[in-house]
Amino acid sequence: MEKKPKLVYITRKEHFNAAHRLYNPTWSDEQNEAFFGKCANKNYHGHNFDLYVTLKGYADANSGMVMDLKKLKLVIKEQIVDQLDHMNINEDVPFMKGQLASIENIVVAIWDRLEPFIENGKLHCIKLVETERNYVEYFGEE
Amino acid sequence: MEKKPKLVYITRKEHFNAAHRLYNPTWSDEQNEAFFGKCANKNYHGHNFDLYVTLKGYADANSGMVMDLKKLKLVIKEQIVDQLDHMNINEDVPFMKGQLASIENIVVAIWDRLEPFIENGKLHCIKLVETERNYVEYFGEE
Amino acid sequence: MEKKPKLVYITRKEHFNAAHRLYNPTWSDEQNEAFFGKCANKNYHGHNFDLYVTLKGYADANSGMVMDLKKLKLVIKEQIVDQLDHMNINEDVPFMKGQLASIENIVVAIWDRLEPFIENGKLHCIKLVETERNYVEYFGEE
Amino acid sequence: MEKKPKLVYITRKEHFNAAHRLYNPTWSDEQNEAFFGKCANKNYHGHNFDLYVTLKGYADANSGMVMDLKKLKLVIKEQIVDQLDHMNINEDVPFMKGQLASIENIVVAIWDRLEPFIENGKLHCIKLVETERNYVEYFGEE
Amino acid sequence: MEKKPKLVYITRKEHFNAAHRLYNPTWSDEQNEAFFGKCANKNYHGHNFDLYVTLKGYADANSGMVMDLKKLKLVIKEQIVDQLDHMNINEDVPFMKGQLASIENIVVAIWDRLEPFIENGKLHCIKLVETERNYVEYFGEE
Amino acid sequence: MEKKPKLVYITRKEHFNAAHRLYNPTWSDEQNEAFFGKCANKNYHGHNFDLYVTLKGYADANSGMVMDLKKLKLVIKEQIVDQLDHMNINEDVPFMKGQLASIENIVVAIWDRLEPFIENGKLHCIKLVETERNYVEYFGEE
Repeated sequence: MEKKPKLVYITRKEHFNAAHRLYNPTWSDEQNEAFFGKCANKNYHGHNFDLYVTLKGYADANSGMVMDLKKLKLVIKEQIVDQLDHMNINEDVPFMKGQLASIENIVVAIWDRLEPFIENGKLHCIKLVETERNYVEYFGEE
Repeated sequence: MEKKPKLVYITRKEHFNAAHRLYNPTWSDEQNEAFFGKCANKNYHGHNFDLYVTLKGYADANSGMVMDLKKLKLVIKEQIVDQLDHMNINEDVPFMKGQLASIENIVVAIWDRLEPFIENGKLHCIKLVETERNYVEYFGEE
Repeated sequence: MEKKPKLVYITRKEHFNAAHRLYNPTWSDEQNEAFFGKCANKNYHGHNFDLYVTLKGYADANSGMVMDLKKLKLVIKEQIVDQLDHMNINEDVPFMKGQLASIENIVVAIWDRLEPFIENGKLHCIKLVETERNYVEYFGEE
Repeated sequence: MEKKPKLVYITRKEHFNAAHRLYNPTWSDEQNEAFFGKCANKNYHGHNFDLYVTLKGYADANSGMVMDLKKLKLVIKEQIVDQLDHMNINEDVPFMKGQLASIENIVVAIWDRLEPFIENGKLHCIKLVETERNYVEYFGEE
Repeated sequence: MEKKPKLVYITRKEHFNAAHRLYNPTWSDEQNEAFFGKCANKNYHGHNFDLYVTLKGYADANSGMVMDLKKLKLVIKEQIVDQLDHMNINEDVPFMKGQLASIENIVVAIWDRLEPFIENGKLHCIKLVETERNYVEYFGEE
Repeated sequence: MEKKPKLVYITRKEHFNAAHRLYNPTWSDEQNEAFFGKCANKNYHGHNFDLYVTLKGYADANSGMVMDLKKLKLVIKEQIVDQLDHMNINEDVPFMKGQLASIENIVVAIWDRLEPFIENGKLHCIKLVETERNYVEYFGEE
């Protein structure tokens, strides 16, 4: 086990089911509907969101791990899934208040909430899959 | 091509993204929350629903088909997907008015709407997948 | 909500990761290896098993449900997943003792353990997926 | 192991990549194009086909199996996959000659080829998945 | 909404079903068959191709988006899917004329066709999945 | 075909089913169980592992390929799958002897075994998927 440690990337997938709508409060309802189409429906629509959290780091010589996935799972649950699952992202989620509930904005907000809790390695990527045809990735500020 | 026709089952998958909540209007809010838990969240949550429509019938000798899938796709689009996609099932969908928006009830309502439009073969099964862990099937009245 | 209740089928998916080997103790090691090939490896191999539990029943008028999926999830967890997850099916699982650990036998044993706990509706099918290429279904005694 | 044997259903998935077109030779090219649309393209199109073969039978007391999946895999390979993989179903496949290359007809032809080779249990279902949105099932003659 | 804009990557998945063969016209048929094996079958074979188009860019403050996915979907449809779906890539696709129809070459050709139509952000990656076991990615010229 | 060659990334997916446990031999059984929990179960557990091997390189002008996938498939089979499939990674695999059988360590060991056999292009990434919720990637030494 005295090999030189290697840089690896480890990913944990979680999910949550939530409602949202695309709506810019500085525009009229007509502008919102013209721009966002059915995504602006005033009674909301929703998705099964899949969330992938990737860390980069060196595997520890004693544990063979970058970060204990049981701990990572718990952090994602407490900081993200418990805040978003079965919620309305426009109405019920304090850390999205005042922001358009687009997946581009959600993915950055998830990064900002998770990063302080990563103990080993560094947060590398947040990937959020909205439907089987759309997803967004964020790698932090460049 | 003079073989005896054979009974086959053909399935088309479509999907829609919608919001809903589980809520019985004859109960108090407390009763709803006690029974349905986070599924009763008053601001709704949502899902990517996958819908599987199965017909049974004999393949036509000239076309080799039970029912033209282009037509079946169009019927499902007009009767179901256009009514449900990016909608709130509790608020926006006339054929679900007055019913609990559970997947058990939605699947029966989809059957009742689609059945008059099946031209060849017979409707055999409606399957509705709510999450990768839950789905409901309905095979019509017995 | 005074519609005639309809018979629907509801399915919950869970999973567990386990080790097993195919081995008949009344045969010699050579017979086991000749018949089961690499599946008889004495140090075991393993799988990510996906388990699908299907109930049939009438949706309740008040809840819109056949059986509360939160309860069904809990029953499957306590009776099945907690017994099998991260276990060796040949060595660690009391209800598989004395039986060949084939998926055909496991699926029947899961049925027998779960059936007494189904409160609403009836158990209809146990499906166990061993790899993306193999699965077994059991519908109870005929 | 003296339990009464139970009837179980076992499924093996295989796949093949093939070209085909929908074309009725008793019709003119114009009729074919009007009816089948782009599926009649004279230079063919193609798919990754997933094939599911389901047997029903009683697990053998000694092996714990309905039929050895290694044997079933070999039979499917020799009778089906080797005939269809990387082939043109309209041009290269003797057992489809003189038939419209629709999935409804292919699935019946696969059943007829496989059935004589099933040693234990009985053939129960052939399922052929053409795209992630279309599939056909055949359960034999009723 | 006055936060500093963040660089995100957004991906849209589309698909098409097509026939092709691997064939180098400067080689003899025997050389082609010796090198490409069954992939050179003169009557073609085919696949369900999944295409992933990834853009990188800054989310717009008003829309919360890098590029409107409805527009991106339309561009991919007009420039790529309508040219390839239900086509024979060797015979029917002008922008592949004179090139070997390998996925390595197709993915570069797709990049070259799409890039002029990306209005917001920059094209980052084209990923083309030929089977569930093979895919190619192209990130543009380095 | 005289275009300037382009750098592309090509990926092949294979899989194997294996048993393992997380266990540090320099710790007591109690320490192992306290740290690794059920992953340390002394009778092992197992997974269906999916392995993705990605090469980067320039497509050859004659073949349209970076490396013949039939050859890459054969190398992965001989060097990796035949060593790991239906094996116990702690007990049966010489190249993992003396190392903790974590996916972080397995993925580096797979890289080291495969790299000498890559004839065209360069090995770019080894990705190993342990469950549908966990995976590790390794891109070689930086």
